Amino acid sequence: MRAAVMRNRELVLDDVAVPAPGPGQVLVDVIACGICGSDLHALKHADKLIATAEASGAPFVMDLQRDIVMGHEFSARIVETGAGVSNVAPGDVIVSMPVVITPQGGFAAVGYSNDYPGGYSEQMVLTAPLCLKVPEGLDPRHAALTEPMAVGLHAVAKSGIKPGETGLVMGCGPVGLATIAALRLDGIEPIVAADFSPARRKLAEHMGAHVTVDPHEQPAIEASQKAGRLKPLVIYEAVGVPGMLDRAMKDAPRNGRVLVVGVCMETDAIQPAIGINKELTVQFALGYTPEEFSRTLASIAEGRIDVGPLITGEVGIAGVPQAFRDLANPDSHAKILVEPALG
Amino acid sequence: MRAAVMRNRELVLDDVAVPAPGPGQVLVDVIACGICGSDLHALKHADKLIATAEASGAPFVMDLQRDIVMGHEFSARIVETGAGVSNVAPGDVIVSMPVVITPQGGFAAVGYSNDYPGGYSEQMVLTAPLCLKVPEGLDPRHAALTEPMAVGLHAVAKSGIKPGETGLVMGCGPVGLATIAALRLDGIEPIVAADFSPARRKLAEHMGAHVTVDPHEQPAIEASQKAGRLKPLVIYEAVGVPGMLDRAMKDAPRNGRVLVVGVCMETDAIQPAIGINKELTVQFALGYTPEEFSRTLASIAEGRIDVGPLITGEVGIAGVPQAFRDLANPDSHAKILVEPALG
Repeated sequence: MRAAVMRNRELVLDDVAVPAPGPGQVLVDVIACGICGSDLHALKHADKLIATAEASGAPFVMDLQRDIVMGHEFSARIVETGAGVSNVAPGDVIVSMPVVITPQGGFAAVGYSNDYPGGYSEQMVLTAPLCLKVPEGLDPRHAALTEPMAVGLHAVAKSGIKPGETGLVMGCGPVGLATIAALRLDGIEPIVAADFSPARRKLAEHMGAHVTVDPHEQPAIEASQKAGRLKPLVIYEAVGVPGMLDRAMKDAPRNGRVLVVGVCMETDAIQPAIGINKELTVQFALGYTPEEFSRTLASIAEGRIDVGPLITGEVGIAGVPQAFRDLANPDSHAKILVEPALG
Repeated sequence: MRAAVMRNRELVLDDVAVPAPGPGQVLVDVIACGICGSDLHALKHADKLIATAEASGAPFVMDLQRDIVMGHEFSARIVETGAGVSNVAPGDVIVSMPVVITPQGGFAAVGYSNDYPGGYSEQMVLTAPLCLKVPEGLDPRHAALTEPMAVGLHAVAKSGIKPGETGLVMGCGPVGLATIAALRLDGIEPIVAADFSPARRKLAEHMGAHVTVDPHEQPAIEASQKAGRLKPLVIYEAVGVPGMLDRAMKDAPRNGRVLVVGVCMETDAIQPAIGINKELTVQFALGYTPEEFSRTLASIAEGRIDVGPLITGEVGIAGVPQAFRDLANPDSHAKILVEPALG
């Protein structure tokens, strides 16, 4: 089958073996798969990704000497079911958390594994009990955004924000936009969103931000205080570059909370004394729970999260390398979908 | 009156004016005043202290061109009461949070103010309603440790640790020891304490640590996992030097909590990706509430916190400059009390 393969730290187009579904697994045709910023990062800095995972005690099992097919934000159609599968049948359109339970009872990260190709290919093997049927009437291209949107739901849940508090989202890339959508879903008001890019600020409004701000024109914290007055504030750091956490800690009010959802892979400098003087809480968030994933799919299906405008590009597998390059420009794209049917 | 004065970034002995109590204020004789690590720091890096406070939005009102008498961990005897004071009378032995309400209705930090001398002097002015009588039978020298011990109670309360969880305290200086005492008071078990100094580890045991560890011999986290098995872990960072927060974040388990109570005035480097991979919470803590202060005094009076062994030195006002130098050696001292009656 055709796939965009990470090989020798490059993305190349090649034919790879079709995976075979074991007991409890299914073979699927990829319908659509979003390109995630983490994949751009993984291509450039795979060694660092692996080293950090190891330092965190949760080793990433990726052998960079062997092929890896990335892609973990997908919707797909069941083609074939392995032994003992009863919850889905060929033809069903599904989404799944990008995790496979291996025949050995271990876990593999779909899209970051040498053994389980991800969504930048024609077909994948998934674990049947993790497959969620895409509700009737929901565009499978939209369903593919369940995964990145679930990251926002998780960040917001983890932050413990409540109605009556202000949410300030720094950075309106896909993670920031997902956070905005989740804040809106939880009835938070005001939601203040900051980004240098006018296109991203427009998307932020679409996802539910009440106020958007260009930090070149006004400090985000100032816009947030104006909009939220004396309400307690939670700052969502969704940029993930060095210096942003320090900025958020300096901006946070006394007893403020900072939720870090932007993945900064670099060493970062902070001023602990500022955290202490203001008794800040810094909470780091990653991923989502199965419940959050499922709630996200339902929210998209019910129209409570409108992901349509986030899709700014659609390419076939052959278009993946160029799409990776295009995503470097934040003003032209939010989410590019890979759709093998497009070629 | 005699005082150890911070003047031109040096500690000098001099005579300074006796302050006059205004309405609602009292004049007191200092009985004992602990020397705090923050004072050692303030003497060396006052400018940085002021800059950080300003960056935190809570300016420290200290004019370094004018005299400052430090000392904020004290017990004292009422000498004279200002107008309208009814809760205390001359002769009463008291402690107080080191805060004075000024006649203008503002707040001044006793020990970090140009206008209100702290406890490295013979007399101070305090705010009567903030004075707590030292219970009958409690040595006023021990009562002077209410303030530093309250810092530990606050850190433990802020961390939200519960029985059934493990507390790992990194650093057994006065702040770490106060944290250990507070964990013991809350029934936490095991309490694991790490410090390079054998003397400090001995004090840690005295304050209630179930296990002590020399990080040169065994990683603190290893000792903690051995003692606490699978119990959730809260790490208290009570060292406050660059690199310790990074160490704590690397040591913390998934979903771990790090409570930062050691004041690191330097810029510090962390790996946000490790925080994210493990979804850590980093909570910074400072000071205490009036309730915590009062509960600390009661706990010391009831013998539930035994502060006696923490007092490793006692000097008169004339001995303050040398005591500051002596405190640089962690193995010889925990808390040195300044007692003006000693000369």
